[in-house]
Amino acid sequence: MTTNQQWILQRRPEGRVKRSDFELRETPLPPLGPGECLIRILYLAMDPATRGWMSPGGGYIEPLPLGGPVMGVTVGKVVESRNPQIQPGLTVAGVGPWAKYMVAGPEQISPVRTGVVGVLAPMDTSTGHELPMYLHAMGTSGGTSWYGLLDVAQMKPGDNVLVSGAAGSVGSLATQFAKLKGAGKVVGIAGGAAKCQEATRDYGCDACIDYRATANMSAAIAREFPQGIDVYFDNVGGEILEAALDNLAKRARVAICGMISKYNDSAPSPGPKNLWNLLVHTARIEGFLVSDWFGTPTSEAAYRQISEWIKSGKLNARLDIREAFDRVPETFDELFSGGNHGRLIVKVS
Amino acid sequence: MTTNQQWILQRRPEGRVKRSDFELRETPLPPLGPGECLIRILYLAMDPATRGWMSPGGGYIEPLPLGGPVMGVTVGKVVESRNPQIQPGLTVAGVGPWAKYMVAGPEQISPVRTGVVGVLAPMDTSTGHELPMYLHAMGTSGGTSWYGLLDVAQMKPGDNVLVSGAAGSVGSLATQFAKLKGAGKVVGIAGGAAKCQEATRDYGCDACIDYRATANMSAAIAREFPQGIDVYFDNVGGEILEAALDNLAKRARVAICGMISKYNDSAPSPGPKNLWNLLVHTARIEGFLVSDWFGTPTSEAAYRQISEWIKSGKLNARLDIREAFDRVPETFDELFSGGNHGRLIVKVS
Repeated sequence: MTTNQQWILQRRPEGRVKRSDFELRETPLPPLGPGECLIRILYLAMDPATRGWMSPGGGYIEPLPLGGPVMGVTVGKVVESRNPQIQPGLTVAGVGPWAKYMVAGPEQISPVRTGVVGVLAPMDTSTGHELPMYLHAMGTSGGTSWYGLLDVAQMKPGDNVLVSGAAGSVGSLATQFAKLKGAGKVVGIAGGAAKCQEATRDYGCDACIDYRATANMSAAIAREFPQGIDVYFDNVGGEILEAALDNLAKRARVAICGMISKYNDSAPSPGPKNLWNLLVHTARIEGFLVSDWFGTPTSEAAYRQISEWIKSGKLNARLDIREAFDRVPETFDELFSGGNHGRLIVKVS
Repeated sequence: MTTNQQWILQRRPEGRVKRSDFELRETPLPPLGPGECLIRILYLAMDPATRGWMSPGGGYIEPLPLGGPVMGVTVGKVVESRNPQIQPGLTVAGVGPWAKYMVAGPEQISPVRTGVVGVLAPMDTSTGHELPMYLHAMGTSGGTSWYGLLDVAQMKPGDNVLVSGAAGSVGSLATQFAKLKGAGKVVGIAGGAAKCQEATRDYGCDACIDYRATANMSAAIAREFPQGIDVYFDNVGGEILEAALDNLAKRARVAICGMISKYNDSAPSPGPKNLWNLLVHTARIEGFLVSDWFGTPTSEAAYRQISEWIKSGKLNARLDIREAFDRVPETFDELFSGGNHGRLIVKVS
């Protein structure tokens, strides 16, 4: 336990990530300082947001420094501690490096060190197989879907709901939460026939539009929602956002969760030409970050409900777990090629 | 009183309006049907929104039909009535034609006929000079500013507020309402030194950015608001909206009131490249229409407060009244060249 392996950001990727943008580096583990603890990382979630963090000014946090580890969302186990509040054996989740181990200090000294103050209460289960769920429906994906749909977009029973990235980790939960919370029609957008089939068969969508096979997205959305969309849960931005804005019902709410279509852009592309529709339909677009809900009563209520849905079999929270620590960059890039089916997670140890 | 004069929309303008897009036509007044009344129009407000109504699909109502009168916001007096609820002599306000007279029927049969169900309770004053104020601070301009700032953008005391079109009818009220309601810094955006001077001297702005003399609007806004904008009251859209989105504080609210920069466009121009900032700053953009508040308790409370501010001299609600019924198109176009100073109103009779 004296050395670590970390995926280091060597250069800022242009467009899609390449393995050569990173280096898997063996580094000695530093001795723990007062208040610090050592965490063995068990699972690493592949998150589209991480692509933004790699770019200069492309994310909602400071860009990851070159020469430092790439960061993501992790589940791990405390193996050593000089923090009296945190005992060895404790399972923790939060932001952490693409690495085998992390040293976490008192909260919020740096992004690495927030690893112990994530979305979860520490767990003492050692069954192992439950843990990845804390990177999906019981973690940031679940929270993001819940807050975006119910708090930000204020979905009400009967609302017509459109979700992009509908077979993705957040989207597949948002579509199901919408149905479970009494939405009217729920339509997904996804890339390819296989993902569209997942969205309708597994994730509660009444219909799914394959954007790769659809020339006119605006017209396709209009066919599904002749009365317009009440809620659009946007994971992709770009042209699909513009197409959705063509189809707003009065007082529609668009929750901007992510803009995966933009993360690989080297320069910003033009925005939607039709923001005027916000005025015509007295509608709104609102961005949000899951971290704003950490530790809130809403968050507690959300995870209580989500865990009940999982236990009762009402929620299909699909995990796509890879034993691929030596291929993290290639695995990460599958988020952008659509290679994953469910929440994409790397099992580290 | 047997003939009317109406400004007829002859063709859909391309870009800025030309006189030849209209015809001033003398037409006989039809006899009143049951429930109808005849209104002599006293004042006609020149409203940027009307430009949108002239375009095919460019507005938030059905496009004005070719060969019919152009519509705007009017104040008038009932001269004849076959509606027992509406007595001759009553002063009324609402949507009506660019004309000397209008026939108004039971409410909402057509846009013309909503003339008697506008934002105001009927007035019985005959002093004349108070009437144009019901086309400004006590009418749709005042309501629009109030609802946009306080309801839609949820301005709170201490908020940093940016207002575009700050010397315009709505903008000049929004800046003052912001100050009167305890905003922190209020900065206007206007075109030209004269309008900027009005904004700071007359309309309560702490500073005003002259967009015609500013190459980098984003940097200019950043200099005024190093901590970012909490509220942006947007009357113009386009590049200034994009510049504002570069400078959002966390949880900023953008109220989209109008997009005057776009009304003369024949094709939609690209939207803001930086909607991503909505996510980074967990901010929102929301469009609204004043008509959604007609007859609400909020509306009553707003006009009560606004009238108190006017009476106590706290509000500078400037009117720019022209005796120019034979030059309505040219007068209307001044909205887009910046020729007016205060709410632009044509005195009809």
